[in-house]
Amino acid sequence: MSRFFTIAVDAMGGDFGPRVTVPATVEALKRYPGLTILLVGQPDAISPYLKKLPDSLSGRLEIVPADDVIGMDEKPSLALRKGRNSSMYRSMQQVSDGRAHACVSAGNTGALMAMGRRVLKTLPGVDRPAIVTAVPTTHGHCYMLDLGANVDSGASHLLQFAVMGSIMTRAVEHIEAPRVGLLNIGEEEIKGNEQVKLASRLIEDYGRLNYIGYIEGDDVFAGRADVVVCDGFVGNIALKSAEGVSRLISRKVRSSFSRNPYRRLLAWLARPVLRELQAQLDPSRRNGASLLGLQGIVVKSHGGANRKCFGFAIDQAVAEVETDVPSRISEQLAASLV
Amino acid sequence: MSRFFTIAVDAMGGDFGPRVTVPATVEALKRYPGLTILLVGQPDAISPYLKKLPDSLSGRLEIVPADDVIGMDEKPSLALRKGRNSSMYRSMQQVSDGRAHACVSAGNTGALMAMGRRVLKTLPGVDRPAIVTAVPTTHGHCYMLDLGANVDSGASHLLQFAVMGSIMTRAVEHIEAPRVGLLNIGEEEIKGNEQVKLASRLIEDYGRLNYIGYIEGDDVFAGRADVVVCDGFVGNIALKSAEGVSRLISRKVRSSFSRNPYRRLLAWLARPVLRELQAQLDPSRRNGASLLGLQGIVVKSHGGANRKCFGFAIDQAVAEVETDVPSRISEQLAASLV
Repeated sequence: MSRFFTIAVDAMGGDFGPRVTVPATVEALKRYPGLTILLVGQPDAISPYLKKLPDSLSGRLEIVPADDVIGMDEKPSLALRKGRNSSMYRSMQQVSDGRAHACVSAGNTGALMAMGRRVLKTLPGVDRPAIVTAVPTTHGHCYMLDLGANVDSGASHLLQFAVMGSIMTRAVEHIEAPRVGLLNIGEEEIKGNEQVKLASRLIEDYGRLNYIGYIEGDDVFAGRADVVVCDGFVGNIALKSAEGVSRLISRKVRSSFSRNPYRRLLAWLARPVLRELQAQLDPSRRNGASLLGLQGIVVKSHGGANRKCFGFAIDQAVAEVETDVPSRISEQLAASLV
Repeated sequence: MSRFFTIAVDAMGGDFGPRVTVPATVEALKRYPGLTILLVGQPDAISPYLKKLPDSLSGRLEIVPADDVIGMDEKPSLALRKGRNSSMYRSMQQVSDGRAHACVSAGNTGALMAMGRRVLKTLPGVDRPAIVTAVPTTHGHCYMLDLGANVDSGASHLLQFAVMGSIMTRAVEHIEAPRVGLLNIGEEEIKGNEQVKLASRLIEDYGRLNYIGYIEGDDVFAGRADVVVCDGFVGNIALKSAEGVSRLISRKVRSSFSRNPYRRLLAWLARPVLRELQAQLDPSRRNGASLLGLQGIVVKSHGGANRKCFGFAIDQAVAEVETDVPSRISEQLAASLV
């Protein structure tokens, strides 16, 4: 992989648009001397944030005009129909035309996935692309997929998720043989539902993964696996439940520490500790979910990401470009899954 | 409902057996002057914990001998075959024979559910009993079901869970029209999987619930609904993920507050706050999951519950006896679901 690479940034996506995406882009250009960024969107909305840009950076930044913006609540089918001139569609087109190595958008996930399938197409051997993201664990993080791109996934889809997740984790995290766990429940004698039981046999038969078998919901956060595989319905609910609890706890901590003047003093003294905890638990800290299984790299940022968080999504795209995740997936799938 | 009632306690269940269950029983007798408890299990294992029991209490306590103990990891089918002389089976038999109004066990969930179906039978109109428990939310708690008794639940099962959960919440929490939410994901245009979409229509058509529609994983903990309905596979994973994150956060708080002497001093000063938080977030604080849909009241305690927590499970059984939850479910189902 060349040390010079280009990323298309959907400047209009997310809750804040250019106000967040453009400054984050400028910061990224400073971090990566070999990086060029194509800022895709309405030039009039973008340029106000580019004043006083030093020449050393402006030479590696280009505005690609796109008039339309896909709304955060827009239905994927509608976005597809009207979206050919949207910043999201055009960003992806930069990748399919070979002008960019990856694209990053904070736009709506459904539309992004639909456009990814339409514009970039899935890799041979992949029936359904999946959404993957890093989830915090005791000693670091693991990668979990799928997180909502697919519901009612069959066993063979779960196997594909396992393969894709393992390849990505090996590439991006430099783990030789990532431990792959299949999300299941432990209460029932029958141990889980039909597709999970079948998927477990398929992954075992496949034989090329470091498959550690079933793991339960709490094991995910204890770091028992490097890759956690599940259906998108289940994964989305597990992750959102985790976020919900985390938010509930933050709220209780704040209210507990503000009940009386003595406690408020304690909170003030414990400021650095509380801030550090907040940062560790902030789900947007490791911002950037990847759409895996497409013929190109697409990273989805949280819609509400601030400049720093949107920067993490760009970092994620850079890491995937540097390790060329799609080609690796494609090679392994071509070699094995027919 | 009479103010005099009897509860059968599986004295041998859980990780600690009589060491926890017997003292918890004695405490409960003190709390409820109208309560009689049948302690079911090995008399030799139980009686050492009953020394020095005042006569005022011993008159309301009876040991029901049962020689066998169902192991925490025993498969439900095996437990059923060999279990007729087990403390778990005998406890349930007290209910089916009309000698007790409810039973409480900290034994393994799968075996408990299998025995419940065998010994107590399901209520007319209920295809599948469900496991329900209280989940903490911003302003209190909500009830979530199913948590693992059923996987691959069909839409009609989800409707039955909604009805049972609503009736129980109304009875136990004295909420006139509990808000019922159906757990779903928001990312996909198609909004969730097939059985959830169908279940939503069935619940709407049913018309007698305060149905607020779909809710997402994070909404559960924000308290958007009083009753959260889902398939047991999904519910189990959501709840265990929540527990996993909560444990992860506790661990991070402890390690953050012990990094250096200054922080350890802060932790010492903030002791009451941290302890209060721990208590609020302790999942076993509201201990006691109910098996709903059986012809009798069965409450399952956490296996690792201590005396105080096992006491909460007894409280839960008392609340369900006082409000006669099974009869209410049976009446409403008989009147509506044919």
